[in-house]
Amino acid sequence: MPLETPPQQPTIEWQLARRTRSMSPSVVREILKVTEQVGVISFAGGLPAPSTFPVDEIRTACDRILKREGQAALQYGPSEGFWPLRAFIAQSLPWSVDPATVLITTGSQQGFDLIGKVLFDPGARLLVESPTYLGALQAFAALDADVVAVTSGPDGIDLLDLQQKQVGARALYIQPNFQNPTGRTMPFEARHQLGAHLQRVGLPFIEDNPYGPLWFDSPPPPPLTAIFPQNGFYLGTLSKILAPGLRLGYLVVPQALFSKILHVKQAADLHTSTLDQRVAHEVIQDGFLEEHTPKIRNQYRLRRDLMLSEMQTHLTDLGVQWNIPSGGMFIWARLPSGMNAEHLLTKCLSQGVAFVPGTAFYAGVADARSFRLSFVNAEPEQIRTGMEKLAHAIAESLEAIHAK
Amino acid sequence: MPLETPPQQPTIEWQLARRTRSMSPSVVREILKVTEQVGVISFAGGLPAPSTFPVDEIRTACDRILKREGQAALQYGPSEGFWPLRAFIAQSLPWSVDPATVLITTGSQQGFDLIGKVLFDPGARLLVESPTYLGALQAFAALDADVVAVTSGPDGIDLLDLQQKQVGARALYIQPNFQNPTGRTMPFEARHQLGAHLQRVGLPFIEDNPYGPLWFDSPPPPPLTAIFPQNGFYLGTLSKILAPGLRLGYLVVPQALFSKILHVKQAADLHTSTLDQRVAHEVIQDGFLEEHTPKIRNQYRLRRDLMLSEMQTHLTDLGVQWNIPSGGMFIWARLPSGMNAEHLLTKCLSQGVAFVPGTAFYAGVADARSFRLSFVNAEPEQIRTGMEKLAHAIAESLEAIHAK
Repeated sequence: MPLETPPQQPTIEWQLARRTRSMSPSVVREILKVTEQVGVISFAGGLPAPSTFPVDEIRTACDRILKREGQAALQYGPSEGFWPLRAFIAQSLPWSVDPATVLITTGSQQGFDLIGKVLFDPGARLLVESPTYLGALQAFAALDADVVAVTSGPDGIDLLDLQQKQVGARALYIQPNFQNPTGRTMPFEARHQLGAHLQRVGLPFIEDNPYGPLWFDSPPPPPLTAIFPQNGFYLGTLSKILAPGLRLGYLVVPQALFSKILHVKQAADLHTSTLDQRVAHEVIQDGFLEEHTPKIRNQYRLRRDLMLSEMQTHLTDLGVQWNIPSGGMFIWARLPSGMNAEHLLTKCLSQGVAFVPGTAFYAGVADARSFRLSFVNAEPEQIRTGMEKLAHAIAESLEAIHAK
Repeated sequence: MPLETPPQQPTIEWQLARRTRSMSPSVVREILKVTEQVGVISFAGGLPAPSTFPVDEIRTACDRILKREGQAALQYGPSEGFWPLRAFIAQSLPWSVDPATVLITTGSQQGFDLIGKVLFDPGARLLVESPTYLGALQAFAALDADVVAVTSGPDGIDLLDLQQKQVGARALYIQPNFQNPTGRTMPFEARHQLGAHLQRVGLPFIEDNPYGPLWFDSPPPPPLTAIFPQNGFYLGTLSKILAPGLRLGYLVVPQALFSKILHVKQAADLHTSTLDQRVAHEVIQDGFLEEHTPKIRNQYRLRRDLMLSEMQTHLTDLGVQWNIPSGGMFIWARLPSGMNAEHLLTKCLSQGVAFVPGTAFYAGVADARSFRLSFVNAEPEQIRTGMEKLAHAIAESLEAIHAK
């Protein structure tokens, strides 16, 4: 029986850490809640298509693991992660990786937190692309880092702007492949030049590669970490090629920092789910991903092509611009002059279609006309209908602007 | 094919955050590695007995969940946690808890990290019992908190010492039930007096209750949080009553702080494993724990009794002292004058028995004669043999001391 709470107790006044006082609720989080309403066609979320999850294989693996090694699979495990999974990941990467430098994280999101704790004092400067991944911005802000945007575009990071901003910086965070939100891929030459520059000035990088395996035409250029393995962290994940609900990511850590990262991992959550690690390893150990990943690529490529052709049909005459991502999950688009993506979203939601306004992804000055479209998690028919609705809302907004 | 790493690249010089520079490798971690050697009878670890894990029930639940709702169980989920699990936990607690204030964490260890981020600026003062749980010390140290020990004993926290140390403190961390490492339980009256004092001076508490369900004779007194629900955080876990490998803990958060905690949870790892949450809920939703927990209690009580009687037989004449825990997993003991538990451990390891020296558990001045014994994870025969070995090593050490 519940105890009665003493009545009328004045509650204490909470004092909060400085980093917390400046926290504002996540805009995207709020948007996503709205977009989850029934009847809304959503191009907003960053969720993989659940039809790509190998449910049966995971079910069989759970059964096998729990029959064969149930007690070990449910016991505490090492903070570094399950050794066979670390070894599998090391050999799957396109450069020579010592499995002892691979650390399993609770999703690659946790990697940001661990790296941030090791590298950033409060107020320490972190450089990021512009725009950049929102989840990284949140994780580094939660550690009170001073996040500074560096000019970047289809050709990569602007090295002149980087030079101006690098003084006192602790690291540069990049997502070189099919970036979230822009879908952009950093060209081969730009990677080499960037890596050489960072090496010269002694600035570490944090290379985040969640979408790399999801290429549509040809694999992206090798990671920066493959060229400069001791100069940066590499973050990978099983969320986009196996299943995000398992929360399995990993870090490849420069040797000099492994014991520090391990220490903060242990302090953060002791270790990542033993069961999930063993089950994932059981599923992928024998070449499963070599068959499975191409299926995801095919499905996503078809949806990208459909969305692009619908955009071509409906949005060209409205003056909307967009890029053609060669992999990943997102198209980055820009409304015509005079329009604002946040305002447009309000109208769109009332008409049953959603996207994410670009402003959320900027650490510095935001482009209020930009927006992100996910093409992976809507059925083809939804893509067609959704694009018509989007075009209709944009046309209405444009009319209203011109009528003023 | 692995890329070749360019030869002879000088690596960059890493700059680390202040909190990281002061990190030393975990002593206990190193000890536990040694104690895992084959042939060592270990009373050192803090691991539950794997024989208590309901492997078959978890296997059946995995199968059912993945058949019934496989895609949802493998997709991203809300940062707050799986709603039915939050609701289950809320109703299982012995006071009136709004499920909307329950947040699922990746093990209760993560709770320390989240609370610390919300409450502690670097250098902020956190008060702890003396001795206290090592994992909490590590988590709060990783956030650069200034951890200060308050005198405490079988009767609870020394309120006079608390008064002297509370100025400027942000919180008091306590484990009132069958504490790790001492096995102590804070008496009913002491809880009320402590809660009233904290209320008066406006100091929040962090109440950690991993062992509460593991009582042997009668349930422990109600949590402090049950009396002062808006004045503190409550941490619970499924690690000791279901399985630690699933990494499922929870926080009951004061209403005023829920959005802040949610924000840092999202930044830390987005959310806890969807599959593990749904599987755990499937297992426990229909009263399973009401049958299962008593079985764990019985097994652990038998082992406690056996260890105590073996200690009585072998250690009394050697001048070793210990307490009688009324639940949990640990006995806290003290070597006779002139001895040192760290030195003794070296000898013990060479003779095939292990424990944890008490020094690791102190934020302030440590009692070098203290040590912790886990009674739950050794078979009865190992307890008998291990206690004989321990007594033998102590006797040898005493002889060496007296021979000097």
